[in-house]
Amino acid sequence: MKFELTILGSGSSVPTANRNSAAQVLNVLERYFLIDCAEATQHQLRRFHLPYNKISHIFISHLHGDHFFGLMGFLSTLSLQGRRGEMHIYADPRLQELVECQMRITRSRLGYPLCFHALSRQEEVIYEDKVVTVTAFPLKHRYEAPVCGFLFREKERERTIVKEQAEAWKVPIAFMQYLKQGADFITPTGEVVPNERLTVAPPPARSYAYMTDTLYRPCFADYVKGVDLLYHEATYQNKEIALAKETRHSTAGQAALLARTAGVGKLLLGHFSARYTDLTDLLAEARDVFSNTFLCSDGYRFELPALKRNV
Amino acid sequence: MKFELTILGSGSSVPTANRNSAAQVLNVLERYFLIDCAEATQHQLRRFHLPYNKISHIFISHLHGDHFFGLMGFLSTLSLQGRRGEMHIYADPRLQELVECQMRITRSRLGYPLCFHALSRQEEVIYEDKVVTVTAFPLKHRYEAPVCGFLFREKERERTIVKEQAEAWKVPIAFMQYLKQGADFITPTGEVVPNERLTVAPPPARSYAYMTDTLYRPCFADYVKGVDLLYHEATYQNKEIALAKETRHSTAGQAALLARTAGVGKLLLGHFSARYTDLTDLLAEARDVFSNTFLCSDGYRFELPALKRNV
Repeated sequence: MKFELTILGSGSSVPTANRNSAAQVLNVLERYFLIDCAEATQHQLRRFHLPYNKISHIFISHLHGDHFFGLMGFLSTLSLQGRRGEMHIYADPRLQELVECQMRITRSRLGYPLCFHALSRQEEVIYEDKVVTVTAFPLKHRYEAPVCGFLFREKERERTIVKEQAEAWKVPIAFMQYLKQGADFITPTGEVVPNERLTVAPPPARSYAYMTDTLYRPCFADYVKGVDLLYHEATYQNKEIALAKETRHSTAGQAALLARTAGVGKLLLGHFSARYTDLTDLLAEARDVFSNTFLCSDGYRFELPALKRNV
Repeated sequence: MKFELTILGSGSSVPTANRNSAAQVLNVLERYFLIDCAEATQHQLRRFHLPYNKISHIFISHLHGDHFFGLMGFLSTLSLQGRRGEMHIYADPRLQELVECQMRITRSRLGYPLCFHALSRQEEVIYEDKVVTVTAFPLKHRYEAPVCGFLFREKERERTIVKEQAEAWKVPIAFMQYLKQGADFITPTGEVVPNERLTVAPPPARSYAYMTDTLYRPCFADYVKGVDLLYHEATYQNKEIALAKETRHSTAGQAALLARTAGVGKLLLGHFSARYTDLTDLLAEARDVFSNTFLCSDGYRFELPALKRNV
């Protein structure tokens, strides 16, 4: 029942001795989603003992090198290690062009199929399975590299039947499915048994959103309203707000404003400019606005536990 | 007067926890030559404290990913850090096509000029300055990736004048240049003073050769006759000689045979298959044939000192 994020790179465009560029892995019930893939992401996956051969879905926010230069190496290593299963890549459609161009020029091929899914410039569900949906939504960075954020949301699960109660009330097996979906039970004598007496609610569905390389726009909070965990870039501090605007990034203070407006559970900051060796002020500025804020480092793991619901 | 090699990656196609894929830096009198550029080469340059902004010449042996996937990231980082000077890249001409294709598709550009130099399929001098020449020579790997080795050779320096002797013999200033080039001096009275009494020989010119991703062919020894230091791939041991042939690589024993045939000074082995965690047998097999053999590891440095010549 895990819902766990591992940060592989907490730095920005230039990797430093302590921080690699952007990449992270979200484990949702043993589905491993790779989000961005900077150079040396395969090294970080190995370093932090992630089962990288289980990754089948890669989400690339935009086509700046610090978010995708590790892709070819990672794909190539998987091929050399005998992978056969499909790999799905969600990205700017130009990434497909780029990968195909590289394979053509170098006369190389992978031992498994790549399935590209082009991100559009509107909010849309780009992946869905039994337990999770992934939504992409457009943010605002630079002309040459349109950028998307990603929202991973667990699906609401069915209610769990309290076996002793269901037996006591002699609920027929054929009705169990309706119980799970929240229906009340009506006995043959017409007595109504409220669903809450026969079932318990599932743990609340968990959610995680990834927003990087974007100008601050208050309206972006609408995309991530109420998510449990938000990762937001904080390339600069507020005192560099002019630089943030010029380079089309956000400050820590702006990330916190967005988190507060969206009413998220917890805010993680990353994508720090290499100029900062001490992030104390950056964190303080964010916590002034949104107290439940934390700094990411490479290897940082955050698990969202499956909480019991009070119903 | 340094002539020093630093290994950045001693592994082969798949990086492991201890060995990155192919890259190394040769420092010849403060010229820093980068040879191959696997993914995470920029990380290794930083890790081993090399002045990577001084690199202006990059030599790429062939277009397999474990030899060039770090190129775009390295070039990009230099640009972000404000580089303005030319970068020269010596490679299969398709690399230029690839880099240009990538820049076009991602609408990106570097802040400095890239100068591509296409490697041909014959032995030729590809770089020359006052102190060093670089020769490329064709090896034998796979159809999709023609491969070259590189030979870095210091130029012979002029002889050093022994000031006291030149003064004692009243050698005119105009003649000094001829002395440096080895001419004897003839006094106004017709006496011949042998050059060796007026000058000392320069240290012997040093040389280094890089041979990777190649089948073993005895004739390849001709390219590297008498070099002081030879790096040769040793992807496998002799007992995997069939696999070496199939994948078009060499064994440690074959590398040693080549070193012995060529009469090199010292042999360094690298490009080890990730299958080997213990390289003792691999080294032993090479030393049986050529005793002055050593194993490379990431960060390994080898300096060729400027020895005095006995003349």
